[in-house]
Amino acid sequence: MQKIIVELGAYSYNIIIDKGLWLNIGAKIRRISSAEKVAIITDDTVDSLYGEYLAQQLRLENFTVTRIAIEHGEQSKNLQVLSNVYADLAAFGITRSDLIITLGGGVPGDLGGFAAATFLRGIDFIQIPTTLLAQLDSSVGGKVAVDLPAGKNLVGSFYQPKAVFIDPTLLESLPQRYLHDGLAEAIKYAAFGDEELFAKLEAFSSDAELLANIEGIISTCCRIKARIVQKDERDTGERMLLNFGHTIGHAVEKCYNYEKYTHGEGVGIGMVRLTEQTEKLGITAIGTSERLRKILTQYTLPTDAQLNSGQIIDVITMDKKKSGNAITLVVLDKIGSGRLIKIPFTDLAKYIF
Amino acid sequence: MQKIIVELGAYSYNIIIDKGLWLNIGAKIRRISSAEKVAIITDDTVDSLYGEYLAQQLRLENFTVTRIAIEHGEQSKNLQVLSNVYADLAAFGITRSDLIITLGGGVPGDLGGFAAATFLRGIDFIQIPTTLLAQLDSSVGGKVAVDLPAGKNLVGSFYQPKAVFIDPTLLESLPQRYLHDGLAEAIKYAAFGDEELFAKLEAFSSDAELLANIEGIISTCCRIKARIVQKDERDTGERMLLNFGHTIGHAVEKCYNYEKYTHGEGVGIGMVRLTEQTEKLGITAIGTSERLRKILTQYTLPTDAQLNSGQIIDVITMDKKKSGNAITLVVLDKIGSGRLIKIPFTDLAKYIF
Repeated sequence: MQKIIVELGAYSYNIIIDKGLWLNIGAKIRRISSAEKVAIITDDTVDSLYGEYLAQQLRLENFTVTRIAIEHGEQSKNLQVLSNVYADLAAFGITRSDLIITLGGGVPGDLGGFAAATFLRGIDFIQIPTTLLAQLDSSVGGKVAVDLPAGKNLVGSFYQPKAVFIDPTLLESLPQRYLHDGLAEAIKYAAFGDEELFAKLEAFSSDAELLANIEGIISTCCRIKARIVQKDERDTGERMLLNFGHTIGHAVEKCYNYEKYTHGEGVGIGMVRLTEQTEKLGITAIGTSERLRKILTQYTLPTDAQLNSGQIIDVITMDKKKSGNAITLVVLDKIGSGRLIKIPFTDLAKYIF
Repeated sequence: MQKIIVELGAYSYNIIIDKGLWLNIGAKIRRISSAEKVAIITDDTVDSLYGEYLAQQLRLENFTVTRIAIEHGEQSKNLQVLSNVYADLAAFGITRSDLIITLGGGVPGDLGGFAAATFLRGIDFIQIPTTLLAQLDSSVGGKVAVDLPAGKNLVGSFYQPKAVFIDPTLLESLPQRYLHDGLAEAIKYAAFGDEELFAKLEAFSSDAELLANIEGIISTCCRIKARIVQKDERDTGERMLLNFGHTIGHAVEKCYNYEKYTHGEGVGIGMVRLTEQTEKLGITAIGTSERLRKILTQYTLPTDAQLNSGQIIDVITMDKKKSGNAITLVVLDKIGSGRLIKIPFTDLAKYIF
């Protein structure tokens, strides 16, 4: 069992990472919530696997429970689905002293967390991530959002959960592609902040070996993220390090209407395309992009998309990381060491392969 | 000129109340914002009166400006209109270092403020209220929201503006009904917290006399509100005092689909119907409801609606102030002295005339 405390004053909370924690999840939630009603926000896939079990566990603890299951997939993370979730919360009669639980991957976590942040101006919520991507990245740090037609995560809040409960055994139901999708974010953490983790990920010879060590990988990533979020909750400085590979990655995902590449796959492509270029610009140690390319390939992650840099830049133009006429990019000095650089928006082409 | 500081740590801000401040509003905004772009969120009525003037003032200060004018009226304060506003903000290419200005009454203030709170997870915003209701109440304190079909203000945030600029001369364009609408909130402040203000409002013999003294009335109300918000930003304790008359008032507004009564009119009716009953229950000094009824009539405000208490209670059942099985009401001991009481929801009928 690993416990990580995210220290944010009155909004501090624990991340609990524990194989088998799911077995008495109801009691764990009752220990930190005196709510009467609980709304579980999840997606249809996760609901069919885990929804009824969680609801039952909660009923045993005398919670009144409803399950709100949205359609799975990024295309659900929009204002229309959010509006339906609000209507369900209203019909359930949830109050400000009740609780929302987000159960699932990044989509239920982000959309459900934003619903929690805004319904009645804020209801306590707990994240129970069920994908590797959500367990080691998106469920931690309080960034919640929905997409607009104009771009991803354009509407959202900074809203911290009351707790994050992570049970790595839930990953056993995850298809390989989504296991690797999440691993792309672990590679990102390693690339900008932890060479030892990078080497460890390089050394695994199978998914079975990876899964046997996954609790440690998740907790290492969560610790890095917690440390950064504590220093820069509102994402105006160091937190931007977490965006390594994301500016290009989001654009790649968007170019294919979020249908061809998963988020992690987009980030992987973004890390490679940026780092190939920063190597040429003398910013990054030679060989770094090759090492990135190799580890991504090792986990059957794509390293390129059939897009030219012009197409990518067009999409980035509306990216939210753009601030005025400049854009902040995360670049690597070498594996394990990333930093922020602010460049004029007009120089962007130099940085994208 | 009156300056009130709302002390909220890193989120502190000034309320400036000054007849004529509108004349150099552009320079005042430039002094506190280094934004490149400004989006003015307003409604069609206010836009036709003040939109172009404000835009011009801002252009003189080298802001790039867009005006987003929603249809006037409470029925615009919904998710669909919000979604259109988000699309306009995206098309304008606003960034996290830019600025939103809400110009108008409570609807542009609440909806525009919520757009500011959530677009790109938060953009600085300045409130420029143009109605009396917004000047002395809704523009202060950071409560922003939109309505759902299930109820008013069910979706929102606590999000503080960077400044509130109040020019009482803008009230000259306000129809009498809306001047009195705002006055109902001033009567509310006086009723729960300032007997001297109550006596002053009783003593005015005409709207002209009222308007001649309006700067002082606005600043008294804003000071009371600032003091309360500082102690209880998140509305879990003393801030609920501001809801005097609102639980019933919202229900009255809603029973008529927000078409028959304005917000202030609803609050006036709510104050009277609750206080008549708390007098009978021995909570409130005899004669208090009569004094409320008289002052509301003096300002041509209604004191009753053709609704029985059962109809009102049905609507309150989904009211957001309800927390679990109890409901918090604001009751008066006497004029100038209000307090919170928490009652079982099942007792509500006793408190509604």
